[in-house]
Amino acid sequence: MVYLDYSATTPIDKRVLESFERTSLEYIGNPNSLHSEGVKAKKLMDAAVLQVASILNVKNDEVIFTSGASESNNLAIFGVINKYKDRGKTIITTKLEHSSVLDSVNYLETNGYHIKYVKIDHNGQVDLNDLEKLIDNDTILVSICEVNSEIGIIQDVNKIGELLKKYPRVIYHVDGTQAIGKKNINLENIDLYSFSAHKIYGPKGIGVLVKKENIELEPLIHGGKSQTIYRAGTPPLPLMVAMAKALRLIMDDLDYNIKYVEDLNKKLINDLKIDGVSVNSNEYSIPHIVNISVKDIKPETLLHALEEDEIYISTKTACSSSLDMSLSVYELTKNDEKAKTSIRISLSHLTRENELDFFVKKLKEKIEKLQSIRN
Amino acid sequence: MVYLDYSATTPIDKRVLESFERTSLEYIGNPNSLHSEGVKAKKLMDAAVLQVASILNVKNDEVIFTSGASESNNLAIFGVINKYKDRGKTIITTKLEHSSVLDSVNYLETNGYHIKYVKIDHNGQVDLNDLEKLIDNDTILVSICEVNSEIGIIQDVNKIGELLKKYPRVIYHVDGTQAIGKKNINLENIDLYSFSAHKIYGPKGIGVLVKKENIELEPLIHGGKSQTIYRAGTPPLPLMVAMAKALRLIMDDLDYNIKYVEDLNKKLINDLKIDGVSVNSNEYSIPHIVNISVKDIKPETLLHALEEDEIYISTKTACSSSLDMSLSVYELTKNDEKAKTSIRISLSHLTRENELDFFVKKLKEKIEKLQSIRN
Repeated sequence: MVYLDYSATTPIDKRVLESFERTSLEYIGNPNSLHSEGVKAKKLMDAAVLQVASILNVKNDEVIFTSGASESNNLAIFGVINKYKDRGKTIITTKLEHSSVLDSVNYLETNGYHIKYVKIDHNGQVDLNDLEKLIDNDTILVSICEVNSEIGIIQDVNKIGELLKKYPRVIYHVDGTQAIGKKNINLENIDLYSFSAHKIYGPKGIGVLVKKENIELEPLIHGGKSQTIYRAGTPPLPLMVAMAKALRLIMDDLDYNIKYVEDLNKKLINDLKIDGVSVNSNEYSIPHIVNISVKDIKPETLLHALEEDEIYISTKTACSSSLDMSLSVYELTKNDEKAKTSIRISLSHLTRENELDFFVKKLKEKIEKLQSIRN
Repeated sequence: MVYLDYSATTPIDKRVLESFERTSLEYIGNPNSLHSEGVKAKKLMDAAVLQVASILNVKNDEVIFTSGASESNNLAIFGVINKYKDRGKTIITTKLEHSSVLDSVNYLETNGYHIKYVKIDHNGQVDLNDLEKLIDNDTILVSICEVNSEIGIIQDVNKIGELLKKYPRVIYHVDGTQAIGKKNINLENIDLYSFSAHKIYGPKGIGVLVKKENIELEPLIHGGKSQTIYRAGTPPLPLMVAMAKALRLIMDDLDYNIKYVEDLNKKLINDLKIDGVSVNSNEYSIPHIVNISVKDIKPETLLHALEEDEIYISTKTACSSSLDMSLSVYELTKNDEKAKTSIRISLSHLTRENELDFFVKKLKEKIEKLQSIRN
């Protein structure tokens, strides 16, 4: 199998799975219980929170465990708009966001909120002048994705945060789901930061929202204090411990792995100089994501042709809507054709060079075959 | 260790943990992905959904996986009130609910909703006449807990459902978290039904909301179609499979286990004829929960005295608020003293008779010692 869909989800690291298992068997108490089995569980939970907080360089009580990045994004958006109702009804975001952000703001738009999309330049970068122009007294939230999930474009979220400091009433959320574990991150100028474990070789069903202590949120899931007052429910201790471990492991080798994937990326981009193939990812993209358009071939057709050889790539993001084009590719290229024929190849430190060789070889074969059928 | 806090959380069944592990290792695709690794994962997800649905005797598309019972309760309540905004602003519930229901309706009360609490009779049963009196044209939702988590009182949720059929505009949610796996359940007259895996020897971090097909919900977590359109996020496949397995295992042995715990319960109730101890649970309570009040002794003091001998019981539910009395015990007994001195002993098919003997022996010793200090 040649799995090139690491941005959809990653296989769990066996050391992480072992942490999950050990915690499941050895910690049977509910961390909310007062007795010593509960206290023992609570101590381990606190250690997991501490580990996440120290890796991210934030305070312990700034870490909120959730069920995943979609919940984190929803908690950030709805938590802010419900808590700061009196501040305004305008949200600024981009068209490069994940569906859990776009669908949330679409829902809010039908409920009286104003959604403004900041301009993206020809490199896919947020236009800071336009952003400043869009901010007014009604603006309560700016939500920006650090790394776009389809093309991999990185936004300079800290520079944006620096600019937003001039507007202290505006809360700043960053969706870091595709950034964490793939680049160095810095939460200094960010109020709220979302990510999940399953993109960093951790289990599915657990995520984090970092919430700086000066920000308040209305919970999305009410029910009193649990790990924090912002998220009710029995703390899923084995998932929390596994997530903390996944985060530590990915961060331990971060610089080495980035370099490794950069080299893979260079090789792949070079090998993709194929007739009819254009690369949509650019110099601002993370090396882990290579988005290409293949002239005249439907992404689904290519995906299924490649899976005949057990090569797994992606059309749009796994969670995107049923539209027949990539919104992100369209937003970047303004090219209908490219947006309708794009596929995503996503790499990992687990990817081997010979896997890419096999992929490129098969891609060429499939393109030739599919184009000959067409002609 | 004598663990008598099974209603707070249960140890995971090793067969369930094995399912989790196997799924984690063998199914690396995202069920939302189009390629065959995704399709393979989606098929297993569908099988897990089918298993849950067939055990509960509902349709496949009536099963919504969530992160746990707190999310299920919140999704039921907020999902209904946001979807059926035009129907009214009154919710009817009881004072015997879990904090994830009570805190949700408290929040709604501060946001313009009317919350009515139906009367409970001296046996803890919902007063059906009062319920009918409370229903008016503004009523959109009735939310009733099938088994109260502190005293274990069972409501006849089907009889209530039968009555509510007269009011087709009123949606009926039942929190079945403490019922499932402890009694036979019947969802025939129920629109929405919540429960979680970790109360039935499954993993923490996964739950279900059953939603009958004629009911619609506004999602709590937006982001497009995932397992269903009602809950976004990458489906946590290993958790889903583990939950389905936990449900099957607990249902396979249900009748045998109920009989076994009934016998334990009889023995315990008999052995608890101790000076100063009064039993709050009654003939309507599930055999798995025995709530008692111990005259003049603070619950926390007793809990910590018992944990010296590695006996683990509970004061209030693990998730309840910081009030210094049990709301449920007060609601049932209207006795301030009893509500301030109550503890919960919760049993399982894993509980052994000699564990109860040890518990009763130690309870007597602790009561004697604590009362002698007091005198």
